[in-house]
Amino acid sequence: MKKYQVVGIGNAMVDILAHVDDTFLTKHGVEKGIMQLIDTDRAAELYGVMGPAMEISGGSAANTISGLAALGVRTGYVSKVKKDQLGSIFSHDIKAQGADFDTPLADADHPAETGCCMVLVSPDGERSMNTYLGVSEFLSPDDIDEGIMADADWIYLEGYRFDGPDSHAAFAKAVTACKTAGGRVSLTLSDPFCVERHRDAFLEVIRADVDLLFCNEHELMSLYQTDDLSVAMTLGAADVDILACTVGVRGAYVLSGGEEIHAPAVEMHIEDATGAGDMFAAGFLYGLTTGRDYLTCGRMGCVAAGEIIGHIGARPEADLMDLFVSEGLV
Amino acid sequence: MKKYQVVGIGNAMVDILAHVDDTFLTKHGVEKGIMQLIDTDRAAELYGVMGPAMEISGGSAANTISGLAALGVRTGYVSKVKKDQLGSIFSHDIKAQGADFDTPLADADHPAETGCCMVLVSPDGERSMNTYLGVSEFLSPDDIDEGIMADADWIYLEGYRFDGPDSHAAFAKAVTACKTAGGRVSLTLSDPFCVERHRDAFLEVIRADVDLLFCNEHELMSLYQTDDLSVAMTLGAADVDILACTVGVRGAYVLSGGEEIHAPAVEMHIEDATGAGDMFAAGFLYGLTTGRDYLTCGRMGCVAAGEIIGHIGARPEADLMDLFVSEGLV
Repeated sequence: MKKYQVVGIGNAMVDILAHVDDTFLTKHGVEKGIMQLIDTDRAAELYGVMGPAMEISGGSAANTISGLAALGVRTGYVSKVKKDQLGSIFSHDIKAQGADFDTPLADADHPAETGCCMVLVSPDGERSMNTYLGVSEFLSPDDIDEGIMADADWIYLEGYRFDGPDSHAAFAKAVTACKTAGGRVSLTLSDPFCVERHRDAFLEVIRADVDLLFCNEHELMSLYQTDDLSVAMTLGAADVDILACTVGVRGAYVLSGGEEIHAPAVEMHIEDATGAGDMFAAGFLYGLTTGRDYLTCGRMGCVAAGEIIGHIGARPEADLMDLFVSEGLV
Repeated sequence: MKKYQVVGIGNAMVDILAHVDDTFLTKHGVEKGIMQLIDTDRAAELYGVMGPAMEISGGSAANTISGLAALGVRTGYVSKVKKDQLGSIFSHDIKAQGADFDTPLADADHPAETGCCMVLVSPDGERSMNTYLGVSEFLSPDDIDEGIMADADWIYLEGYRFDGPDSHAAFAKAVTACKTAGGRVSLTLSDPFCVERHRDAFLEVIRADVDLLFCNEHELMSLYQTDDLSVAMTLGAADVDILACTVGVRGAYVLSGGEEIHAPAVEMHIEDATGAGDMFAAGFLYGLTTGRDYLTCGRMGCVAAGEIIGHIGARPEADLMDLFVSEGLV
C-alpha cells in the first residue's frame, strides 16, 4: 500500500472573499466569472476599492486535497508558501484537515508574499477571481520530492500551476517519478483562459501521461478548439483513459473505455460557485480510490460540488460522508 | 456638527473562527463561552490542534464601529495594529466599511504581531474566545489624538481594552479630550471576567465620566457584586445617565431618568453568538445618534444583534437598515 492515495500539486493561496454587485466589476475592469492573474500593483488597487472581506484558505488543488482529506483519504499537497501570516494560515488549514504539506518555504527575503486570490462574489453566486500568485509561481523541480510522487497512487495536477517559470519542469519531474513507480496521473484544466495560455503544454502532457482528465465543458471545448461538446468529449476520451467533464446544472459526463455515463447534478441554491470544480474532483477521486464504479464516482463528485456552492468559501462545511450516505452512495 | 458621531477605542484583532465540539474544549482546557487572554505559546499550541478555520476582522469595539459605519454613521476607530498581513486585513476591512482608522502602526521591529482571537464555535452557537492581544495591548496615550476625541459626539470604550500597561492612561486622555469638548462617553463592560480584572477602574470611570453603559446581565451583576439583576440595574442606573443591559433571549433593558424600558429580542436561530453584544451597541448607538427614543434604540440593538448571531462572524452580512425598515423602526 502506498503512503498516499492522492498527492496534489497546485498554487497555494488564501482566498479573500467579498460580495460585490456587477456594477463594481464593470467599474473596476474585472471580467465576470473567470480567473485573472494580477500583479502586486493591481492587487493593491483592487483591494483598496473592494469592501470588507473574509479570508479562507483556497487554491484549486488544495481545495480538492482538503476535501479528500476530510473524507479520510490519505493525501499530500505540494506548493510554495512563504513564512508569513498568510502562509501560516494556509499551512495550518490544509494540515489541520489531515493532508501532509511539507514543501520547503520560500526564503524570508523572497520579494513575493504568499499568494492570495480576491474572489468577488456576485449576487447570482458567480465568482470573479483575481489571483496574485505570489511565491506559488516559483515552485521549481527542486521542490518536487520524487519519493512523495513515487509513493502516490494518484497525483493530481492543477492546470493553473502551468503558469510560472519552472512549472512545466516541476510537473515533468513529478509525473516521471509517479509513473515510474506505477502511479497514475490526473489533471484539471482549471479554466478556459488557462487552456488558451497552455494548450500545447496541456495536450502534450495529456497525450503522454494523463490517465484521468477533469474539466468543464468550456475548458474541454477550448482545449480541442471546437464549439461542439460531443466532438470535444470524443477527442478527450481518445486521449485519456478516463474523462470527467462537468456540465454545470446538468451534472457531469464520465467517458471511459468507449462508454459514456451521465451523473446528474444535485439541486442546490447557488450561493458562491467558488470551488465547485475542485470539490467535484474530490468527490470523484474519493469514489475512484475506494473502488466505486464511474457512475458512483460522478455522483459523488456532483454531491460534493453541490455542497460547496451552497455557502461562501471553497472548502466544505458539511460532512461530505454524511451527504454521500444520505444520497445512498455509501 | 462634529466630524464624528462615534469614535471607538478597542483591541484590533482578526478573528480565526473554527467549529469545534465541546469535547475539544474540555480536552484542550478551553473554558466555554468566555474570553480568555492567551500568550504566544498558548496561541501556537491551540492553533496547532484546532481544525481548519476562516479569518474575519473582529475586535469588539471595531465590530460596533463597523456596524455603525455600515449604517452610514460618521465613525472613527482607534487601536494598534502592526504592518503585517493581519494588520493589513484588519485595516482594510474597517476602512472599507467607511470608518476612519489612522492610529500609527506598531514599529516593524515590535516583538508582537497584530492581535488575533481564536473563536471556537460550539454546535449550540456558543463561542469560546482565545485572545492573543498582540500589539493592541500596547496602545498608549501617545496613540490618542485629542483632536479626534474632541471632534466626536460620542466615544465608545471597549472594556477589554482595560488590559495592557498604558491602557488606563490612554482612556483617561481620550475621555478628558472628549468631555472637555462637550462630547459624551459610552463604555461596554465586555465580559464578566474582564469586570473581575478591572472592577475598580471600571467603577471609577463609570461614576466619573460614563454617560452610557453597555453590558449584559452577567457583567452588570459582576460589576456590582450581586446575583440580583434588579439590584444591579438599580445601582447601574444611579451611576450613569443611560444603562443598556442585554438579557440574552429576553432582549434588553434600557434605564434612564428613572424609567425602565424593555426591548424584546428578535427570534433567531443561533449559529454563532460572536459579536451579539457588539452589534447591540451598534444598533443602539445608531438610534441614539439619529435621535430615536430609548425603546427604538433598544429594539434597533436587538435587531442588529439578531442579525449577527444568525451567521458565522461578528460583522454584519445583511443590510441592517433593511432589517430596521422591515421591523418598522425607520
